[in-house]
Amino acid sequence: MQFGICYYPEQWPEDQWELDARMMQEAGLEIVRIAEFAWHKMEPSEGQFAWDWLDRVIAVLTGAGLKLVLGTPTAAPPAWLTRTYPELLRVDSSGRSRDHGTRRHICLNNPTYRQHSGRVTQAMAQRYGQHPDLIGWQVDNEFGGGGTARCYCPACAEAFRLWVQARYGEIEMLNEAWGTVFWSQTYDNWAQIRPPSDQIDKPNPSHVLDYYRFASDSVVSYQQEQIEMIRSLSPGRFVTHNFMGMFRDLNQFDLARPLDFITWDNYPTGNTPRWRPHLVGTQRDFRKLEELNPQHSTLRTPLAWDTGDPLITGMAHDLMRGLKQGPFWVMEQQAGHINWAETNSAVRPETVRLWTWHAVASGAETIVYFRWRAALMAQEQYHSGLLRHDRSPDVGMVALQRLRQEREQLDRVAAASLAPVVALLFSYDDLWALQLQPHRQGAGYLSSLFGFYQALQRLGIPVDLVAPDADWSRYRLLLAPTAHMGTPALAQRFTRFVQDGGTLLLGPRSGFKTASNLVTDTPLPGVFRDLTGVTVTSWQALPDGVTVNLDSSIVTGAAATWVETLQPVDEGVKVWARYRGWPGEGVAALTEHGVGRGRVFTLGFWPTDFQALSLIATIADGLAQPRSTPLPDGLLAIPRGEMVVLLNFTAGPITTTINGNEVTVGAVDCLIVNG
Amino acid sequence: MQFGICYYPEQWPEDQWELDARMMQEAGLEIVRIAEFAWHKMEPSEGQFAWDWLDRVIAVLTGAGLKLVLGTPTAAPPAWLTRTYPELLRVDSSGRSRDHGTRRHICLNNPTYRQHSGRVTQAMAQRYGQHPDLIGWQVDNEFGGGGTARCYCPACAEAFRLWVQARYGEIEMLNEAWGTVFWSQTYDNWAQIRPPSDQIDKPNPSHVLDYYRFASDSVVSYQQEQIEMIRSLSPGRFVTHNFMGMFRDLNQFDLARPLDFITWDNYPTGNTPRWRPHLVGTQRDFRKLEELNPQHSTLRTPLAWDTGDPLITGMAHDLMRGLKQGPFWVMEQQAGHINWAETNSAVRPETVRLWTWHAVASGAETIVYFRWRAALMAQEQYHSGLLRHDRSPDVGMVALQRLRQEREQLDRVAAASLAPVVALLFSYDDLWALQLQPHRQGAGYLSSLFGFYQALQRLGIPVDLVAPDADWSRYRLLLAPTAHMGTPALAQRFTRFVQDGGTLLLGPRSGFKTASNLVTDTPLPGVFRDLTGVTVTSWQALPDGVTVNLDSSIVTGAAATWVETLQPVDEGVKVWARYRGWPGEGVAALTEHGVGRGRVFTLGFWPTDFQALSLIATIADGLAQPRSTPLPDGLLAIPRGEMVVLLNFTAGPITTTINGNEVTVGAVDCLIVNG
Amino acid sequence: MQFGICYYPEQWPEDQWELDARMMQEAGLEIVRIAEFAWHKMEPSEGQFAWDWLDRVIAVLTGAGLKLVLGTPTAAPPAWLTRTYPELLRVDSSGRSRDHGTRRHICLNNPTYRQHSGRVTQAMAQRYGQHPDLIGWQVDNEFGGGGTARCYCPACAEAFRLWVQARYGEIEMLNEAWGTVFWSQTYDNWAQIRPPSDQIDKPNPSHVLDYYRFASDSVVSYQQEQIEMIRSLSPGRFVTHNFMGMFRDLNQFDLARPLDFITWDNYPTGNTPRWRPHLVGTQRDFRKLEELNPQHSTLRTPLAWDTGDPLITGMAHDLMRGLKQGPFWVMEQQAGHINWAETNSAVRPETVRLWTWHAVASGAETIVYFRWRAALMAQEQYHSGLLRHDRSPDVGMVALQRLRQEREQLDRVAAASLAPVVALLFSYDDLWALQLQPHRQGAGYLSSLFGFYQALQRLGIPVDLVAPDADWSRYRLLLAPTAHMGTPALAQRFTRFVQDGGTLLLGPRSGFKTASNLVTDTPLPGVFRDLTGVTVTSWQALPDGVTVNLDSSIVTGAAATWVETLQPVDEGVKVWARYRGWPGEGVAALTEHGVGRGRVFTLGFWPTDFQALSLIATIADGLAQPRSTPLPDGLLAIPRGEMVVLLNFTAGPITTTINGNEVTVGAVDCLIVNG
Repeated sequence: MQFGICYYPEQWPEDQWELDARMMQEAGLEIVRIAEFAWHKMEPSEGQFAWDWLDRVIAVLTGAGLKLVLGTPTAAPPAWLTRTYPELLRVDSSGRSRDHGTRRHICLNNPTYRQHSGRVTQAMAQRYGQHPDLIGWQVDNEFGGGGTARCYCPACAEAFRLWVQARYGEIEMLNEAWGTVFWSQTYDNWAQIRPPSDQIDKPNPSHVLDYYRFASDSVVSYQQEQIEMIRSLSPGRFVTHNFMGMFRDLNQFDLARPLDFITWDNYPTGNTPRWRPHLVGTQRDFRKLEELNPQHSTLRTPLAWDTGDPLITGMAHDLMRGLKQGPFWVMEQQAGHINWAETNSAVRPETVRLWTWHAVASGAETIVYFRWRAALMAQEQYHSGLLRHDRSPDVGMVALQRLRQEREQLDRVAAASLAPVVALLFSYDDLWALQLQPHRQGAGYLSSLFGFYQALQRLGIPVDLVAPDADWSRYRLLLAPTAHMGTPALAQRFTRFVQDGGTLLLGPRSGFKTASNLVTDTPLPGVFRDLTGVTVTSWQALPDGVTVNLDSSIVTGAAATWVETLQPVDEGVKVWARYRGWPGEGVAALTEHGVGRGRVFTLGFWPTDFQALSLIATIADGLAQPRSTPLPDGLLAIPRGEMVVLLNFTAGPITTTINGNEVTVGAVDCLIVNG
Repeated sequence: MQFGICYYPEQWPEDQWELDARMMQEAGLEIVRIAEFAWHKMEPSEGQFAWDWLDRVIAVLTGAGLKLVLGTPTAAPPAWLTRTYPELLRVDSSGRSRDHGTRRHICLNNPTYRQHSGRVTQAMAQRYGQHPDLIGWQVDNEFGGGGTARCYCPACAEAFRLWVQARYGEIEMLNEAWGTVFWSQTYDNWAQIRPPSDQIDKPNPSHVLDYYRFASDSVVSYQQEQIEMIRSLSPGRFVTHNFMGMFRDLNQFDLARPLDFITWDNYPTGNTPRWRPHLVGTQRDFRKLEELNPQHSTLRTPLAWDTGDPLITGMAHDLMRGLKQGPFWVMEQQAGHINWAETNSAVRPETVRLWTWHAVASGAETIVYFRWRAALMAQEQYHSGLLRHDRSPDVGMVALQRLRQEREQLDRVAAASLAPVVALLFSYDDLWALQLQPHRQGAGYLSSLFGFYQALQRLGIPVDLVAPDADWSRYRLLLAPTAHMGTPALAQRFTRFVQDGGTLLLGPRSGFKTASNLVTDTPLPGVFRDLTGVTVTSWQALPDGVTVNLDSSIVTGAAATWVETLQPVDEGVKVWARYRGWPGEGVAALTEHGVGRGRVFTLGFWPTDFQALSLIATIADGLAQPRSTPLPDGLLAIPRGEMVVLLNFTAGPITTTINGNEVTVGAVDCLIVNG
Repeated sequence: MQFGICYYPEQWPEDQWELDARMMQEAGLEIVRIAEFAWHKMEPSEGQFAWDWLDRVIAVLTGAGLKLVLGTPTAAPPAWLTRTYPELLRVDSSGRSRDHGTRRHICLNNPTYRQHSGRVTQAMAQRYGQHPDLIGWQVDNEFGGGGTARCYCPACAEAFRLWVQARYGEIEMLNEAWGTVFWSQTYDNWAQIRPPSDQIDKPNPSHVLDYYRFASDSVVSYQQEQIEMIRSLSPGRFVTHNFMGMFRDLNQFDLARPLDFITWDNYPTGNTPRWRPHLVGTQRDFRKLEELNPQHSTLRTPLAWDTGDPLITGMAHDLMRGLKQGPFWVMEQQAGHINWAETNSAVRPETVRLWTWHAVASGAETIVYFRWRAALMAQEQYHSGLLRHDRSPDVGMVALQRLRQEREQLDRVAAASLAPVVALLFSYDDLWALQLQPHRQGAGYLSSLFGFYQALQRLGIPVDLVAPDADWSRYRLLLAPTAHMGTPALAQRFTRFVQDGGTLLLGPRSGFKTASNLVTDTPLPGVFRDLTGVTVTSWQALPDGVTVNLDSSIVTGAAATWVETLQPVDEGVKVWARYRGWPGEGVAALTEHGVGRGRVFTLGFWPTDFQALSLIATIADGLAQPRSTPLPDGLLAIPRGEMVVLLNFTAGPITTTINGNEVTVGAVDCLIVNG
């Protein structure tokens, strides 16, 4: 594996570049990413390029032995562009245009913008595409960041009309797909179609879902233009983009598809408060697992205050790895405090080291720290770098020096096999559909996935988060906490997976919707009925505090949040849990159905963390899948080849048993043991 | 009484209509409401009507023996209308137009809209007005729903200028009525008058109150056009509208006046969280009545989780009945889960049955359930129907089958006399004036009414919520928790009521304002001084936690929230409670004044629930008004003729004493006993 | 000292003026402020003045012996002005114009508005400037009130372009000063510069800070035009403005400079909830000082419910006095309940009396009560006056009659010397810079000042809040809790102050920024390094609950919120506190450095209230500055000459020791003792 750094030479006097490059090289950095916000420096006025400064920067950096990653600067359009062509500014759902003075304030569908961003990309690729020390490209920067994934400008409205026209062919088909007969919403012609602005009180969910898809497709299409330019002018170099973990507004699978590999920006202390509300919903307190493991309740060993939540960071790593079912880079690794949370806590060197180990153990091949030196100016003044404002080393630099000493171990881990046989299904269509119609506060899509994710992590079972159309042949167990949209294609893929010997777990709210976000009119789980061997005779959202008792040898406790009563429609169905009392005395709550060489478990209720853990443990044992006894809270155990990487994110040492051997991992520390 | 159903044939394939009609008939449904959102189906393009589908629907439904209620479709204008004439879109107080894709997004004052909505109404009335199975019409749907009661478009601005001109005649009179000399707000001419947009930081409360009145009058005037068309083309059929219970943005008395009877849409689980913040204010926790009745604190028998709050539902029933002082329909009765709350809880069949009994006991003559089958498409996909999406019976259907078996008892209750002799004054002018200037958080108008309402319910005393200009001759006790606007006309009506033998209770903040929302310059209670025989020498809003001790034989505890010191100005005034210490040692807090053959109680403070109960009980006993001992929490007792309908909304059985007999009502159950 | 009253004759019938004037005179009032919202009465249509009514008002009032203060009416532009010239309406940061119907809805930079407001000011000054009973003028009213300090209209955009042009000369200098190279924000020419609207997601903090400065300068420039007109036409009369205490949106030092003296509007019950969130931040509960003084925890004697927080009111008095380092007036003194808080609590006569005493003891020479009689109309109907709506006396009048009896004592206090030798540095640049980039929730600029302010108050040490460019020669101790912007000029002033024998305390986050809001690239505390004799080797924001132990003979407890590690760079530096463990075992946390004849204390952490108190007490004792033992919570002790004014804001009597003598002050009462 390699270490890299994000560097902004344009922000520093030219006479400091040599010193910076030498210090980077001395610090053990091997890769440097530059240029992704320097459009105005490259093209100070329309069509007039200025490359000399960048030539000199590159000469200095590569002269110090650093390999180069270039970012296209299109996330930061210059003032001359937006002041001259204000029509290319992004418009929000209330109809207001953004303004110059930040980044990503333009519309990616605007033809004028595409022309200008294409020109600078092409010129840059032409000039540097074959530079011998150039190893790859980052297209643009954090697509969708700052709430910019969706634009509502006239150019988008026009592009959306073409998008729906291509999708539905005839306006009558759109009316049927969106169910516009409801409340006389029927459209008479394409020209009447518009983006779903916030001026519509409670808009049609089929309309909005299609707009979300269209907006995501727009970014994918914009990215494709840059990819093609770069591939043609810079052969042999990789093309990637820096993704944003659990970011919800784009279909990250689609965005990943054309790239050589993906990278992502890992900020544990900022991402935890940002994502946690979506991951940790109702009836869930994943910090209260005393019932599970009384020795290690967090009351005694809380998470260390500066680590973020390792389960949340880990889920993002596993999704990022799942995007292309392979290794990835961390293109921006937090290396000290950040500036964009409400409280931007200090971070300790030990923590930066642990984050690095976590990333590498999870499949990261390169760790690029953000950023070299803290900025003196503008929006990110309070964001740390490896160097402080005054050039003294900050905590990240201290961590890096320790990590260099551990390079051999890091390389060994990076080279070891990482091939999960368990997959967790992740669908942006399902995510968006449930985001638009949650029905029950706190029971969101990501939260339903997180329940199973935390269970897998506590059992030390590695998992890929994968798309509905991914290659599943490498997995033995596929978890679909909610396969909400029941397309025939997905039903077929599920069936083939199971018939070929796979085990599938299907949770509640599955098969409810069609591809255009209508409700199926067949008994639930709709297209999955034959596969599951059950029919859902009723579904119920329960308010907080209301539960239904369960009778089961696998799961304990009561069902809450959401309950579906299951009725076997096939003789071979085995019932593993039954409800006691309303909504159906003795009615099935969890079933198993043998299909071909595999099995399908159907879960009728939304499990608590503990129930998910029991369930996964039982299924894993049935599959002879190796697993730990439940791990103490805050400890991760990631198998790599013959090794297990133990990561302790808590404020105290943890002693546990791995493969029969007792081991102790210090606070905010890691340890490699043989698995 | 009768059962009915809301049906949307346009949302289902024509080949399912026969099956639906037959199933309705078999389920015991007698009435079907249709068409109220089907404008585009009736008039697919401007001026081109298409009636054949509706002819066939009506033939199928009436062929199955169902009686017809037709809704005019004007709440759902089609795309061709708003895309062609965007000027008729509703504009909110920030100046932004709504957009197509929902309902009620148009301005009822726009002349173009009135022309188009008049055309479709007239055409519909012409075609079906004399159909032999048509029993009545619903005009439009839920006026004001979705925050649409008030529009701020140019057409409204112009209409408002005419409205104020008609009201005030001369601009000088408007300036005086609004007190515009304050902060140089003076208007020089009518053209300067505008709606009070949200661009005015803290607008003039007289200006805003008049805009609220104008907006309400606009809806009344719009409704009137449809009523007149229908009456002329469809003689002998009733004309009604579906009201929204405690909805605050329209003067529902005005809207009810021209209708034959009113109907309303009763959604207990959604309305409870929506209305509760306005009804349950400061110093009030109507769940904590241990002091009152320790055997039945809600700690042991909480409300059942799926019933909503029966006091809130009951207050809406009693207001709806009070709108025209007579029986009403429930035009949309919740029959399962809804889709528009934050958490849309499941509902049980027992609960749907109890809601039905509650409505009938409260004066509903017909219960129309919403809706036949859950919608596969659009905004209300997650709203239940009697049938599920897959046509299997949902909880409402189960409830209906039980209710059919109880039809005889229901009819007996519906036929029994319901003639409250107690009335609670309800004034939209007062509601709006106090909404604009609450002065003290948590002490709103509805909350002041609710304190007395809950006391009456706990004592089993039926009550009508009536308008200031209603016929009061049928009542013996009139409660005016806050007669905030002290118009001479109201003072005269109060006086006549008391002189004729009535008992009036007048609470704090009474007589404070003039009709144009200025403060009176005479000592409070202003125009009511002679009637009450007291003058208010000071008024004070108390923050939470600050109380004033009371010395009284009627009420216990201390005064809080709001205190007014009363000074008798008539020798005959009797003092029932005095303050101890600040703001006046020994000063009167509650007085009684004999006037003619009646009496006036004047209350100087905002009572707690328990104080309101003590006070009402004392007054009721003085009037020999039959009442219960305080009922356990969650139990309602509604007298009908010789019967009392007992309704238990709690999760456990309740044993209580009615008329000396001990009775037990099961959880979520009802019981009829002889009163 | 004198008593005055705010009066709005235009709001009352002319035939009541005589009665009002006579009652004022009888009540002991000597000064009356009028006319500040009466523009439309003075100029009913453009250019047509109507003075006769005001002539008569003045004749009546001065005839009753009252002295006159005239307010220019420019805060309340008439409808004919804004309807004719809508371009002069204020525009908010979202681009929307305010509307007629309130006050301050215009842009002070608009040339048309300046012309009109100049015309009415000039005409008024011409007519009344030499009236023998006119003692002074109030310019406009509460500049910036209602969120109007900053406007974003085209006139402001143009004025801002001129402002930055004047400040930076060349566009390249602006780019450097704002660090626009970041994210390609670079401006190519002045025309591209705009106000930082809310359409910029996370704008550049240098851009925004300059806009705040520009907006403040705009108000100062507007005020100057009126001052000059009045000075030329009304010689010998004072010119003042009514300030708003802790108001944050304007540089009140700049606004005060050209005035003869300042006045302010003191509303303790409203200001407390409004300002408290900014003053009382994280890790601070200034109500929990049991560790400090167990006999007087507020658990036993809470603040009286109607007083507001005396420390917050006191801080405003001390800032207002510090604006010009001299006495001031209270131009609007709350005299009963107000109308603009969420809950507008009653107020008692004792409280109004105590507020008056507090103001006088703090340096107020005249107390003008707001307002004569409660308004019958418009926005402030619920605001109390000395008279109620019905002309009966309200609580303020009762208080005034008691205060008249105490007039001799009040005069004695007012005449006594008030010359603090301790100053607290207050910088609007620092306030705004930290408001824009707090980095750590709850650690704002005002909160850092308040920690020291409360300590001084508890020790009975009077303090001036003064500007960075104030005359410090009168002080012995200067506290700079955060000298955030490290300008060379400030470093020089600090150094001179210390060299001349002064003691300076410098807290964390000092010297961090340049004047244009960039971060310094030199080691912290930047320009203050030589003076402090230390360098900051790291800074850290700690989240709630994380602390660092301290080893110190001066302060106890642990460091929290923000820690900076100090490294002495001068041999003479004495270390008073050291950190234990991370972020540096034994590293300095509090140092002392002798410079010239004085000393500099450098504090590396954000102190708790108790730590601030210990620190101040130690330093004060070192300076032989008289102080109390820590005072009980809710008791203020303000030294005036040989006296000490004791003010008890709690609900119970307080017994304490002043200068060795035990004294008892009653609840909501005051007492003068010899110091």
